[in-house]
Amino acid sequence: MNFASDNASGVHPAVMEALAAANEGHVLGYGRDALTEAAEDRVREVLDAPEAAVMFVSTGTSANAIALAAAVQPWHRVFCHEDAHIEGSECGAPEFFTGGAKLTLMPGEGGLIDADALEHAAGFWAGEGLGGGQPGAVSITNATESGRIWMPEAIREISAVAKQHELVLHMDGARFANAVVASRSSAADVTHLAGVDILSFGGTKNGAMGAEAIVAFDPALADRLAYLRKRGGHLLSKHRYLAAQFYALLNGDLWLELAAHANDCAAHLAQRLTAEVEGARLAHPADSNQVFAILPADADDRARAAGAQYYKWPSQGEDSGEQVTVRFVCSWNTTGDDIDGLIAALRG
Amino acid sequence: MNFASDNASGVHPAVMEALAAANEGHVLGYGRDALTEAAEDRVREVLDAPEAAVMFVSTGTSANAIALAAAVQPWHRVFCHEDAHIEGSECGAPEFFTGGAKLTLMPGEGGLIDADALEHAAGFWAGEGLGGGQPGAVSITNATESGRIWMPEAIREISAVAKQHELVLHMDGARFANAVVASRSSAADVTHLAGVDILSFGGTKNGAMGAEAIVAFDPALADRLAYLRKRGGHLLSKHRYLAAQFYALLNGDLWLELAAHANDCAAHLAQRLTAEVEGARLAHPADSNQVFAILPADADDRARAAGAQYYKWPSQGEDSGEQVTVRFVCSWNTTGDDIDGLIAALRG
Amino acid sequence: MNFASDNASGVHPAVMEALAAANEGHVLGYGRDALTEAAEDRVREVLDAPEAAVMFVSTGTSANAIALAAAVQPWHRVFCHEDAHIEGSECGAPEFFTGGAKLTLMPGEGGLIDADALEHAAGFWAGEGLGGGQPGAVSITNATESGRIWMPEAIREISAVAKQHELVLHMDGARFANAVVASRSSAADVTHLAGVDILSFGGTKNGAMGAEAIVAFDPALADRLAYLRKRGGHLLSKHRYLAAQFYALLNGDLWLELAAHANDCAAHLAQRLTAEVEGARLAHPADSNQVFAILPADADDRARAAGAQYYKWPSQGEDSGEQVTVRFVCSWNTTGDDIDGLIAALRG
Amino acid sequence: MNFASDNASGVHPAVMEALAAANEGHVLGYGRDALTEAAEDRVREVLDAPEAAVMFVSTGTSANAIALAAAVQPWHRVFCHEDAHIEGSECGAPEFFTGGAKLTLMPGEGGLIDADALEHAAGFWAGEGLGGGQPGAVSITNATESGRIWMPEAIREISAVAKQHELVLHMDGARFANAVVASRSSAADVTHLAGVDILSFGGTKNGAMGAEAIVAFDPALADRLAYLRKRGGHLLSKHRYLAAQFYALLNGDLWLELAAHANDCAAHLAQRLTAEVEGARLAHPADSNQVFAILPADADDRARAAGAQYYKWPSQGEDSGEQVTVRFVCSWNTTGDDIDGLIAALRG
Repeated sequence: MNFASDNASGVHPAVMEALAAANEGHVLGYGRDALTEAAEDRVREVLDAPEAAVMFVSTGTSANAIALAAAVQPWHRVFCHEDAHIEGSECGAPEFFTGGAKLTLMPGEGGLIDADALEHAAGFWAGEGLGGGQPGAVSITNATESGRIWMPEAIREISAVAKQHELVLHMDGARFANAVVASRSSAADVTHLAGVDILSFGGTKNGAMGAEAIVAFDPALADRLAYLRKRGGHLLSKHRYLAAQFYALLNGDLWLELAAHANDCAAHLAQRLTAEVEGARLAHPADSNQVFAILPADADDRARAAGAQYYKWPSQGEDSGEQVTVRFVCSWNTTGDDIDGLIAALRG
Repeated sequence: MNFASDNASGVHPAVMEALAAANEGHVLGYGRDALTEAAEDRVREVLDAPEAAVMFVSTGTSANAIALAAAVQPWHRVFCHEDAHIEGSECGAPEFFTGGAKLTLMPGEGGLIDADALEHAAGFWAGEGLGGGQPGAVSITNATESGRIWMPEAIREISAVAKQHELVLHMDGARFANAVVASRSSAADVTHLAGVDILSFGGTKNGAMGAEAIVAFDPALADRLAYLRKRGGHLLSKHRYLAAQFYALLNGDLWLELAAHANDCAAHLAQRLTAEVEGARLAHPADSNQVFAILPADADDRARAAGAQYYKWPSQGEDSGEQVTVRFVCSWNTTGDDIDGLIAALRG
Repeated sequence: MNFASDNASGVHPAVMEALAAANEGHVLGYGRDALTEAAEDRVREVLDAPEAAVMFVSTGTSANAIALAAAVQPWHRVFCHEDAHIEGSECGAPEFFTGGAKLTLMPGEGGLIDADALEHAAGFWAGEGLGGGQPGAVSITNATESGRIWMPEAIREISAVAKQHELVLHMDGARFANAVVASRSSAADVTHLAGVDILSFGGTKNGAMGAEAIVAFDPALADRLAYLRKRGGHLLSKHRYLAAQFYALLNGDLWLELAAHANDCAAHLAQRLTAEVEGARLAHPADSNQVFAILPADADDRARAAGAQYYKWPSQGEDSGEQVTVRFVCSWNTTGDDIDGLIAALRG
Repeated sequence: MNFASDNASGVHPAVMEALAAANEGHVLGYGRDALTEAAEDRVREVLDAPEAAVMFVSTGTSANAIALAAAVQPWHRVFCHEDAHIEGSECGAPEFFTGGAKLTLMPGEGGLIDADALEHAAGFWAGEGLGGGQPGAVSITNATESGRIWMPEAIREISAVAKQHELVLHMDGARFANAVVASRSSAADVTHLAGVDILSFGGTKNGAMGAEAIVAFDPALADRLAYLRKRGGHLLSKHRYLAAQFYALLNGDLWLELAAHANDCAAHLAQRLTAEVEGARLAHPADSNQVFAILPADADDRARAAGAQYYKWPSQGEDSGEQVTVRFVCSWNTTGDDIDGLIAALRG
């Protein structure tokens, strides 16, 4: 009954097999190998973006930070949601890689940036001149930190503001697969076709060991990305093993199948929580593979006593003595038994 | 009738004379001269801080950025007011000098950080662990960006929170003289005696040509300050002319007299605005040398037509068609005629 | 016949098995797992340094850059050999992570910094004052970029200079196992017992998939290391798989056995090159697992025609038409057949 | 008898008068004033570069660092002479402002970079790929740190190499006026007409209080310069006083007259040293306003006993007991009496 995080899950067997298969013979390091080329090509294919620059790294934080650093100057502002992972969970990696660009926090329900607020903020800072720093980018997370989904039309709305203010549009897709599945759209529809310029395409939470792809739909960014990755210490020497992970996930539709399973588990869990656990309700619609729930304190106590693992959310959140807000994350290997067990424990 | 900014005023005659007097003979550069030593000593004397490290620079932005960089690590958060100059008017200088530390914005009336909000935020981020970045400092502006004053007891309240969370307490004193005068306290009372660790002591807006002092009440910061200043290109070779400015201002009580004049002008202007200009009211109490007023649009039109200079505030502020919020700044050389003229124009 | 690099070799079977074994159940991310703790403990044990701070990352460049950034300030100089990997092969990662510290290049045979030159340079820059930047660290590579070994007494000689000038002594141990074996000393003897303060302990070239340990013998650096790693995007979420690699290598003496094999291959190759290939000679003594050789151009042509893979060294080196300098790297999986084949091809 | 540095000299009377004249009335800050515009225009006129971007700062270090930061990326290498001020006297300001670009040191007599060495180094690092960092700029100092002059044809030779390798050519003109006079060329001839892309045009050593101009001959760099200056804390609020200094120096040919005086003094001093002081000889030809001389130790002792001020050079230089290398700097206010006195003291 582990619902702590999708990175607490292990590695999918197909990825392990791909790693073993890649472990043959001598191969030139630093990405100059056939498997890397194939994996990059497959990323382009999946996104229907034949010209995109694709680059693998092993963490989501580095993917986001390098993507932003390729897109902005140190004197730029990057607009992001006030709950954004890049603001609260990356220890200043975006500031570090960009050379000190500012994150300017935007409101919006469930991690979805309010387009009017963005319009206002971009206009305000553009008008403030040198001292204010120049608006440079907007970063949206899909699925959001609250488990919501950016539907194509919502992305296009943000993109319209971005274009008007010459902002690069970045998508933090740590749970990109979950978002694509949940939006019932193609990967292209929720990225470049909706105006996304640069994408952090997550593999780790989808079943990889540690593999993310940075995808710049404008291939002119390729050089900047390459130098930023190398200089950040993120170019793996035995690069084939990084490529192998992504290649395995994108083989067929495995990445989408795994995400669909996690999303379905979350939907199921959300439905049962509200139907079967007295006093429980959802804090956000469970659009993807995360369920944010407000639980009666005694239900929470029972579940923890039964060994269920999950986080209070936010970890510093102030709850009343009578109820507590928590996050349950479903993963590629969440089972029906896990959900049954959790519900049973919560009910007591 | 120029109320645009106290940096639109010229240089006080005593400062000009000091520059001329300093222009004698050859003197070793880079601060290794007797006048620099004397000026540093005088700063320590004025602050009743005989051990403090004192260092001159020529801009307020560099004073703030170097002070913060001496105090924090790149992975730290600096709490400041959402209207803080370091956030909105310095183009990311704090992020640049600190190596990418984050500014986390705090609410509070009139630029005065709410102590409870600080307590909450410091506790929250301390609890978030590595990903959140470590709480490192709090920066308050005195007088604030809205012309309010931090009284000693309010500073001690912030300082108590800072000490509890191991935050360095920085004071941006671009208008420090105005604040000292307005608080009817000593310079020591509103700084180290109230828990301030490092001060940006402004001279430019007080009548200098371009001179600010960074004062670290913990002299152990002296080395870091020295390297940061040199590396930032802020160590003037003909340093005596920087020292001369500060020495002239701190000679006797000139700095306080100039600030008192400016504050008195502002109080007078505020009183007359509300008494004589129909429909005008103050946006903030005019504690120091700045008057923030909400004017009827036609009064504003008349004043501008008459040649009065002042800023809409904030410059991007959205006003109704019928009224407009503006800032009038009084200076060491504001005259009674200026005020008479402004009031007359506003009244029409 | 691949002698291009030890990172062109694959992953040792024991490491692959350890990865598979680690792939059981849910485990908390970000290094809060038992396997990580065990692997860190084993590193301390192997180094006989029970108090050391140990932290895993996935690349040698990040290990070096984070180690240096923990040790120095942005205004420091780091002395290193003019052939050092941190200078020529890391795209400025040390400058990036340190916030702009300078690398000051030292001469010395075969990548071994000349202690007198270091003494002179450290004294010179200490005397130059603020403008010169402060001497902060010295970094040595063991085995060196030319395949030479730092014997304990040579390290102590460098360490004595370092201590005198208050320099932190860093060792880039990308090929640390090879160095330990070649020096016929213990891991402790060539590190903290000889005055090394912080070590990049390489696993990747020793048979891992991508795993290096940063070891600070002064545990007070632990916090800085943790923030620098997180902020650099180098804290893997599924951290167990990083720990598993190191744990597998350090299980028993596997790491030393693999290095001994590679070193023996190199010694054998070096001996045969000089004995059997007419006109071939060594550019440096083959102390560890790298053989730098000066070959007749026709021998080089023959070997390449036969499919042998290895690099011209330096890659930009200017050779006469008649001879060429090359590097052959032996690895944990170099075979006798590889060597036979190479020698046969070179002989023609 | 002060020959320590041209920044030990005071401010020229014409500059002081200009400052006094500028001290009239209220003027908008941050460079939005007529005097700033006039001074910028005059810089363009003097350089015969009507399209150039011109920006004033108050120190040479900031001029160099901002110029380089506008020109290169963090992963670039900047080639400069091993004696360059940017390497040895600016505490890493170039690394700080560029975000960690590397300075790669070039040999050459008297501070003049050897064009063949540059050609070799640029080619070498271009060939090293990602790991080596990309060649980005070359910085030459005119007059050099050894008092030598870059004649137009020598600059063109460097420029040819720079163009071939896509390097931006920066000139550190801390003593630009001395260089222009000494080269008997126009300011245009030794800058953009010879291929210089960006210039640090020094005013401080030429008689200003603290004023340097950054001149980008490619006006597309204007925006980057503006943000870098603001973010670096180098945009003076009372900017008119910075502009006034430059305007005064460039009024008529004052800047050239002052430099010519300093150069003539140096030539005169050099001639008399070798003719009249037994055992004295020049370490470098005295091309501009600096005289580097090797003196018998007793002559040095006598001069210092007589109160002459000048530096041993380099300050950490190792001299034999019998002779010492020193630097005498002549300035706009060096007098014949100063020289007579120095020569007399040296002769004893």
